[in-house]
Amino acid sequence: MQPSEAVKKKIDKAILEFLDRRIEQAAKVSPASELLMKNIKEFSLRRGKRIRPLFVVYGFKCFAGGGEDKIIKASIATELLHDYLLIHDDIMDDSDLRRGLPTFHKVYEKIYAEQSVSDPATYAENSAILAGDILSAISPEPILNSDFPEGLKIRAVKKFNETNCQTGFGQELDVLLELNENAKAEDVDLVHTLKTAKYTVESPLHIGAILAGATKEQLKILSDYAIPAGRAFQIQDDLLGVFGSEEKVGKPVDSDLKEGKKTLLTVHALEKASPEQKKRLHEILGNQGISMKDVEDARKIIEETGSLEHSKKLAKQLANQALEIAKASDFNQEGKDFLISIADKLVNRED
Amino acid sequence: MQPSEAVKKKIDKAILEFLDRRIEQAAKVSPASELLMKNIKEFSLRRGKRIRPLFVVYGFKCFAGGGEDKIIKASIATELLHDYLLIHDDIMDDSDLRRGLPTFHKVYEKIYAEQSVSDPATYAENSAILAGDILSAISPEPILNSDFPEGLKIRAVKKFNETNCQTGFGQELDVLLELNENAKAEDVDLVHTLKTAKYTVESPLHIGAILAGATKEQLKILSDYAIPAGRAFQIQDDLLGVFGSEEKVGKPVDSDLKEGKKTLLTVHALEKASPEQKKRLHEILGNQGISMKDVEDARKIIEETGSLEHSKKLAKQLANQALEIAKASDFNQEGKDFLISIADKLVNRED
Repeated sequence: MQPSEAVKKKIDKAILEFLDRRIEQAAKVSPASELLMKNIKEFSLRRGKRIRPLFVVYGFKCFAGGGEDKIIKASIATELLHDYLLIHDDIMDDSDLRRGLPTFHKVYEKIYAEQSVSDPATYAENSAILAGDILSAISPEPILNSDFPEGLKIRAVKKFNETNCQTGFGQELDVLLELNENAKAEDVDLVHTLKTAKYTVESPLHIGAILAGATKEQLKILSDYAIPAGRAFQIQDDLLGVFGSEEKVGKPVDSDLKEGKKTLLTVHALEKASPEQKKRLHEILGNQGISMKDVEDARKIIEETGSLEHSKKLAKQLANQALEIAKASDFNQEGKDFLISIADKLVNRED
Repeated sequence: MQPSEAVKKKIDKAILEFLDRRIEQAAKVSPASELLMKNIKEFSLRRGKRIRPLFVVYGFKCFAGGGEDKIIKASIATELLHDYLLIHDDIMDDSDLRRGLPTFHKVYEKIYAEQSVSDPATYAENSAILAGDILSAISPEPILNSDFPEGLKIRAVKKFNETNCQTGFGQELDVLLELNENAKAEDVDLVHTLKTAKYTVESPLHIGAILAGATKEQLKILSDYAIPAGRAFQIQDDLLGVFGSEEKVGKPVDSDLKEGKKTLLTVHALEKASPEQKKRLHEILGNQGISMKDVEDARKIIEETGSLEHSKKLAKQLANQALEIAKASDFNQEGKDFLISIADKLVNRED
């Protein structure tokens, strides 16, 4: 078992304990509050990589020896934040499945339908908005209650809240990107930066580092690592979304195309395409009724326009950039090793 | 001008300055982020009583001399929280108007319709969910950035976040109350306690008092004042909703009845009603097509069952209870006077 696997297990345990305490408190308010909190727990404990709490823990370890237990307890704030954002995102995207199970509003739709509530879908959506709101409200608590100096906790919570805000801006841009026929690579890149690089990598690393008392200069080095690493991850994810296998990616190979998801891959292809290729690609993107032949045509255009190569190259270049930063850093070994191992995986992900 | 009027003006100014700074920051992210923040500002600065920030300021003044400027800056957190909750509540209730103007999602529906977006209502709802989420995320910032000792700020923010969570539970119960044919007075009372007494009165008073360094015992006295005052206010509000004039209340006299709003007034009347009265009341409550004759019939049943008298008496009793607590307190004069003046208004509201 890798060291980070052991940490992940402890993170899961901390989430479980936190939410069990919250269920107890909610039960004192009303049975409906208890039920809502129980469903939040069920949703939160579904399988997940816990990558954000792991970044908090190893961001901390870059600058501190010891204190693992207390940073693990604080780190789960980022996972609670993530769960709230997923619950609300799933409402906005009208998604049915999340982590292989019904989305939060779909869980409640079933509950209300069984109670013969008229219009269970609307009531369920309201419950999911509220569940997300409640989870957002309590998400900073693990940091506020943690055993770190008060001044550091305040700095960490401010960073945390700011990330919550910026991710909201990123989601708004992502939604608007769908509507934008002329989206450019830089538009896609801004969404990647806000919704993946900053949200998933930089902010968790910073929160951990802040709680370890890191300086501004040290935070800057973490940013130099986090932004390219996060962008590389997202580009690769979008690549796998079109060229990966369903088995490997966990979703149908045509789902990104059907959704008309604006990715570097598709936006770059549209920029470089001949008028004919452009027309064909527009027919396919966002079309719910596409066949395997259409998928293959889209793949071919993405290859022929050099877009596949461009994305692969850029992802590898960004991953290498992150790797070099991690290698050159003078961080504590355990933290440094984790950053290197993540960047290493990104460099070799496509091979 | 009353002293609290001058404070209210300063609160409005602090909200304006805070959101202007936020607009500047959002403009650096993207034009869409800037637009969202501008609309949040427009929504937040609509006319309002600013009762929650006022309670923060006077809760503080109960225990501290001086420091008015810094408590005013911190107090606006409660108004930002309120605005976010209204934006989300209006989505859930599918309301068109708020403070005499279109609700947040209706503002965005117009924006998207003008851009010829297909399905502008859905996109608008998503933008309103995100606007609320963003506002919720940044709402604790005025406390975190305030010029109080770090330990007190952490205590105040924990109270603030907990209130956000409990109000969510209250809203969930309120939504479910609509569905409950057999709602009891105690069910209505729990919603009043969570959504009005704790949220609007107790929590703001506590946040101010905590920042002044109040003891647990002092907070307890504020609770003894806040809970009856908040309940009295809500009962009177529900009374005016059925028996007030449109001119005085600012909404049609039949709107609570049409909505089928579960209030102490209606729930108590249904409990005491004869089978015939009960049948008639059920015909009227929640019926969108009621006439002025129906309104008069409902009023008559509420009077004949003793429900009107019961609500009036209870509200006055609760308001007097709050008044006595305020009068008996040894709080600083300025804070004490404010609490007394509010309770006084509640005692005499119906006369």
